[in-house]
Amino acid sequence: MSQLPVINIGICGLGTVGQGVWKHLARSRAALESRLGVRLNLHRASVRDLRKARTVRVTAAKLTTDPLAVATDPTVHIVCELIGGTTLARQVTLAALRAGKVVVSANKALLCAHGPEIFAAAQKHGGHFFFEASVAGGIPIIKALREGLVANRFGRIYGILNGTCNYILTRMEREGLDYPVILADAKRLGYAEADESLDVEGWDTAHKAGILAFLAHGAWVPTEKMLVEGITRITQTDLQFAREHGYAIKLLAVIARDFANGELSVRVHPTLLPLTKVLANVNDVFNGISVNGDVVGETTYIGRGAGQDATASAVISDIADAALLLRRGQGCAPVSAPAAVRIPFAPPERIRSRYYLRLDVRDEPGVLAQIATATARAGVSIADMVQRPGLRPTAATLLLTTHASDERAIHATLARLKQLRSVLGTPLLLRIADF
Amino acid sequence: MSQLPVINIGICGLGTVGQGVWKHLARSRAALESRLGVRLNLHRASVRDLRKARTVRVTAAKLTTDPLAVATDPTVHIVCELIGGTTLARQVTLAALRAGKVVVSANKALLCAHGPEIFAAAQKHGGHFFFEASVAGGIPIIKALREGLVANRFGRIYGILNGTCNYILTRMEREGLDYPVILADAKRLGYAEADESLDVEGWDTAHKAGILAFLAHGAWVPTEKMLVEGITRITQTDLQFAREHGYAIKLLAVIARDFANGELSVRVHPTLLPLTKVLANVNDVFNGISVNGDVVGETTYIGRGAGQDATASAVISDIADAALLLRRGQGCAPVSAPAAVRIPFAPPERIRSRYYLRLDVRDEPGVLAQIATATARAGVSIADMVQRPGLRPTAATLLLTTHASDERAIHATLARLKQLRSVLGTPLLLRIADF
Repeated sequence: MSQLPVINIGICGLGTVGQGVWKHLARSRAALESRLGVRLNLHRASVRDLRKARTVRVTAAKLTTDPLAVATDPTVHIVCELIGGTTLARQVTLAALRAGKVVVSANKALLCAHGPEIFAAAQKHGGHFFFEASVAGGIPIIKALREGLVANRFGRIYGILNGTCNYILTRMEREGLDYPVILADAKRLGYAEADESLDVEGWDTAHKAGILAFLAHGAWVPTEKMLVEGITRITQTDLQFAREHGYAIKLLAVIARDFANGELSVRVHPTLLPLTKVLANVNDVFNGISVNGDVVGETTYIGRGAGQDATASAVISDIADAALLLRRGQGCAPVSAPAAVRIPFAPPERIRSRYYLRLDVRDEPGVLAQIATATARAGVSIADMVQRPGLRPTAATLLLTTHASDERAIHATLARLKQLRSVLGTPLLLRIADF
Repeated sequence: MSQLPVINIGICGLGTVGQGVWKHLARSRAALESRLGVRLNLHRASVRDLRKARTVRVTAAKLTTDPLAVATDPTVHIVCELIGGTTLARQVTLAALRAGKVVVSANKALLCAHGPEIFAAAQKHGGHFFFEASVAGGIPIIKALREGLVANRFGRIYGILNGTCNYILTRMEREGLDYPVILADAKRLGYAEADESLDVEGWDTAHKAGILAFLAHGAWVPTEKMLVEGITRITQTDLQFAREHGYAIKLLAVIARDFANGELSVRVHPTLLPLTKVLANVNDVFNGISVNGDVVGETTYIGRGAGQDATASAVISDIADAALLLRRGQGCAPVSAPAAVRIPFAPPERIRSRYYLRLDVRDEPGVLAQIATATARAGVSIADMVQRPGLRPTAATLLLTTHASDERAIHATLARLKQLRSVLGTPLLLRIADF
């Protein structure tokens, strides 16, 4: 093996994912080396605390507390940025790219916040940036979008991209327990972070949706421009209504492009998805993505979206691609994403859907008529309405679905409903998927 | 664009798939060229009949009736072999590879029959062979196995790989009609070939299973060494029993590797698959593949398995990879499959499963006891037995499931049952998936 070219790998951040990469790379190294025609050397790693116990054995000489030293080490060819966050991770990534290295990253927040800067640095200095692990963990969706499905334009991509939310919704549905109970248990079991807001408010999903939108359409959509709603207000009432009507409720990212006018929309929201769709049956911590290509039709990808092993699998596949790229020069750089272009965003009236509304109302005569009138005046047509007993004897819960409408009309409806004295609190709005 | 290197593409066989490739490549060419940094030129094509009407416009000067002339044309860089069959297609493929060209193929039968010869020719003469379209049409499963999941060893891969069988089983289940009725309708609608045997007897699935086994384990398993059973004997009785017990019946390819002893088994048979599994809900002409990797866990891939457009999508993704490879030399050749090695095949007693048996028996006293005794003597334990009215007043149908057993024991059971005077005809044996 000694005459094979040696590829030195530096790992910045030897946390859960970093240790997973180290462990599985050490185990599969011989097989990978024979397939790739290179020697893979686990050369250096940076850690926060040199004395902390780890599940992988790394000799002390290979460890440093300075990730920038790894990123700029002239003997390191591939830098794995597994620190997380967007400050130090950005410095490390840019330093390595400016030195013309290959960076392998699992950091969706970094990519979403600084994508254009990162790709510009890579291009300017001859570096490369790989990020298969940043979306949907072990599912090779990045490779599918930019290589396997390269013949296609993507009219719609939608997916379950956050394992924590899917785990919580699955358990709520299965066990009939409320959101706060399941969330607390998920935290106890390590399926939710101590501060869960990034996951349950939809921002983690939005980051990943931004990356998929970039890959599919070449445009970076800032999360502020997306419609982003989380799962915190979903109750058993909603889940039961959905189930009875043939739907599951899933937190979906939806990236839609209208090729007639070029408009793109990127949104994240809990969605009533027909149980006949494969993704409605993707449960627990699993992720799933359905991609609609104009040539291939719909293809769907399912797997674990996070965790040490799934993420390590994706990082190692990027390391393998990077090693091939380094073995004989730059010829095998991955296909570029479509050139970043100015893409018009779809205005709210173009984002059409059927809607589900849950309203708490005073249980008194004339309320139904008021609500029906307010809805009709906003131009939204009710398809179905059910009244359930409310939380208090003087209140009732109304569950209604609308015929196809659009975001402008439904928000006008919500505004009118909130002005009614008979409507208590803020109604819950969910979208119903017709795809 | 004129200073970009030009890649000349020759298409051998301008049938359904060939015309799809031509059409979609012509449409997406500008986008592909800007991503790949090359010009893609549809240079030549071979056809059987120059005067036949086609849906794509090809100037007469580009057409020939001699596919070997395209394969050996020194100005052609990428040869798409879309002729089908294993005779002329083999000549064309070997001629192109011997000339050091890249061959893109959708031909699973060729690969399965002559894989070692094809890969040896490619290696010897510096050619390359791409075959994404050969398995599961538009689903990028080849790329997933050898690039996206390169960190993994594959303990089990199973999938629905034949759209015709899945279409027939789905319609039988949905419409309650018998196999011959649905088959006749599938032929009328073009979902089944005039001679359907390659599909419904499982051989097409076996070809594809052989390719997946090679990619995952580096060994070519001839179809004669596989257990291959088709769907022709499945009836409404079987589908109803399955449904009532929480299963769908799917024709599955199962590629299992035991890493403890290295043994590999490749088999194709109709399978009772729990409805909780995603693939049990993959219907109509769709294909689906579940891959169990030791690092990533289970990932699943679903999409159209055949048809002009799905196949064209896969062929074009191979053309894009080939163009990148040609742009700057050989550095970006795909990761080799694991080196072909001698892998032991699992003997029948190692292939374990629960089983479902349907027997037609004489409706007379003592029959149940005879069957229970014969089964027990072969070492198989019955889990569940139901008696249904038979086709004739003097006959009954017995449906039974066994506890986990193995192929040797269940075949010994079948042999004993067939010897019983009370058992009429040949029992139907199906496997029950416990994965």
